[in-house]
Amino acid sequence: MPNSKRLEQAIVHLDELEAIVVDDPIDLYYLTSLQLSLGRLFIFKDRKPVLCVDGRYAEAAAQQNLVDVQIWDWKSPLPFALPKRIGFDSLKTTYAQFEQLMHLAPTTDWVALQGPILQQRMIKDEGEIALLKEVARLGTQGYQYVLTLLKEGITEQEVACELEIFWKRHGAEGVAFSPIIAFGEHSAFPHHRASSRKLRQGDIVLIDIGVSLHHYQSDMTRVCFFGSVSQQLQHIYKLVLHAADKAYELCRPGVLIGEVDAAARNFIESSGYHFIHGLGHGVGLEVHEKPRVRISTADADLPLKPGMVLTIEPGIYLPNEGGVRLEDTIVITHNGYESLTQCSMQPVDVLTQL
Amino acid sequence: MPNSKRLEQAIVHLDELEAIVVDDPIDLYYLTSLQLSLGRLFIFKDRKPVLCVDGRYAEAAAQQNLVDVQIWDWKSPLPFALPKRIGFDSLKTTYAQFEQLMHLAPTTDWVALQGPILQQRMIKDEGEIALLKEVARLGTQGYQYVLTLLKEGITEQEVACELEIFWKRHGAEGVAFSPIIAFGEHSAFPHHRASSRKLRQGDIVLIDIGVSLHHYQSDMTRVCFFGSVSQQLQHIYKLVLHAADKAYELCRPGVLIGEVDAAARNFIESSGYHFIHGLGHGVGLEVHEKPRVRISTADADLPLKPGMVLTIEPGIYLPNEGGVRLEDTIVITHNGYESLTQCSMQPVDVLTQL
Repeated sequence: MPNSKRLEQAIVHLDELEAIVVDDPIDLYYLTSLQLSLGRLFIFKDRKPVLCVDGRYAEAAAQQNLVDVQIWDWKSPLPFALPKRIGFDSLKTTYAQFEQLMHLAPTTDWVALQGPILQQRMIKDEGEIALLKEVARLGTQGYQYVLTLLKEGITEQEVACELEIFWKRHGAEGVAFSPIIAFGEHSAFPHHRASSRKLRQGDIVLIDIGVSLHHYQSDMTRVCFFGSVSQQLQHIYKLVLHAADKAYELCRPGVLIGEVDAAARNFIESSGYHFIHGLGHGVGLEVHEKPRVRISTADADLPLKPGMVLTIEPGIYLPNEGGVRLEDTIVITHNGYESLTQCSMQPVDVLTQL
Repeated sequence: MPNSKRLEQAIVHLDELEAIVVDDPIDLYYLTSLQLSLGRLFIFKDRKPVLCVDGRYAEAAAQQNLVDVQIWDWKSPLPFALPKRIGFDSLKTTYAQFEQLMHLAPTTDWVALQGPILQQRMIKDEGEIALLKEVARLGTQGYQYVLTLLKEGITEQEVACELEIFWKRHGAEGVAFSPIIAFGEHSAFPHHRASSRKLRQGDIVLIDIGVSLHHYQSDMTRVCFFGSVSQQLQHIYKLVLHAADKAYELCRPGVLIGEVDAAARNFIESSGYHFIHGLGHGVGLEVHEKPRVRISTADADLPLKPGMVLTIEPGIYLPNEGGVRLEDTIVITHNGYESLTQCSMQPVDVLTQL
């Protein structure tokens, strides 16, 4: 979708507002394709948007004609008049920035919105889906590479480091988040950080990784066995696989997001385990974005729509023993879903099967 | 400095307040050594601090005894009473978080402060300076490595990628910022992003790079010649070197930050060029933190103090031709300064001198 369309859409649903102001660098990139560490975009209902930047970005900004550019030093009065009712993003705007807006236009009614552009970014267009597929492919290649690294004695940190280098050599901008490489009992911590723990025979291995390419992010989790693991871990593996199936059965337009979470959650709970985190989250320019896929949250009553890209990641964790989480990033299509993570979830014993 | 001291200092200067609340993950790390993506710390004048975290961080938080830990789900009422006047950081708190604070304690007077912990972080303690020296050493090693990569035909992106890999192999957590590798005319853009531009004989090469280690950041810029460059570029190189000297002459406790910027700025302007950005910035847990080293900004009237760590980075840029910026990160000592960037600034022709 061309940026002009995105700019139009940003204001079209905000009936009672005459403009919205966008400060967040990622929102600005989404709307203008410009990489600005600092910028302020006013999108008006009845005229061309105006982007305020300082001297650093004057040249880059002038090379597009989607928005008018005003060079502005962030201290002077704005060089144009503002309308009476303007929305701002209360999730991204700091209190100090809000005070500055009030100071710039004291008679304007500044209306707090909850992530208006984040809301719009929830539905990906074709160009974005193509980029998300490309980054997911690089992510999956990273996972395949990790499997080749798993030898007795290697540490979690060494695996994480080699993975980052692999991705970098294959064109990545960086990691979407610090790789979660968790051996044995460490896999019981959903937010484990790679440590100096060495890989040992009989370890379960949890690999939750994401990479960044063309500004888009990937996110996937797989679990494999390094030799034979306990019956109980094998059992929860099957349960998590089954919980994921329960969720995938509901992944189609019109189903409420909370229902998808509930399907996996109820299955895990009815099997006698707890599901201690949400089922998933949106993925796009950020690795965690809207919607949040979890019952009893603000997004639970939203229906799935074509173009939503989100993770499905059920998990079961046994303290001091280990955990299993299986995660794909999927896109909702017109009649169901498609997984961007092209990679089997079946359990693999890397000692015998690779 | 132990964290207990940092926690004490956080409140000691805020005479009229009974508490401050800290939400920012980096501030939280500074004060507690805990890595929390989400947490809220209340530091009281008259009792032990209380850290609110959700279930994810319960175990990690419980392993320290600096602060009391409350498990809190971010929706329920707070499980303890709040005093009447509490400061919050308006630079880091979003408007939505501010609304949540108001909702949590509607009768509390929430006082907007301008980065109270950032202010405190401006003066580094001995432990921090040791870590900043260590990361600066790794940064400088990266620069030496870049020099070995400079061969005709290599692209800026290839150099940036190999540098990131080098650092990663040497223990880096990541980059402090995307490496600025600028060949030839690209060096005229202070915020250039590494491109597919190939290195050619006669290019000036600008290398502005930083790495991250143990949560601390490095930042340095060097310029070298790939073969012989124009007289004019050689001339501005000497001017920038001289401008840096003018600044270093004033780097000692008591001198106003604005005076240091002015010394370099006046020299460049009196030589017939413009100095289009600030002279420098603080470096610590973030690569850009307080103080801002520039005349006519809020920090210009602050005196330099022992323990301040900042960059000195004068530059001159000739559009379509090239630019020179030379940057060290220094620490202010009791009687002067010490450079953390142990590396000569003298011009090098890598074709003949390496």
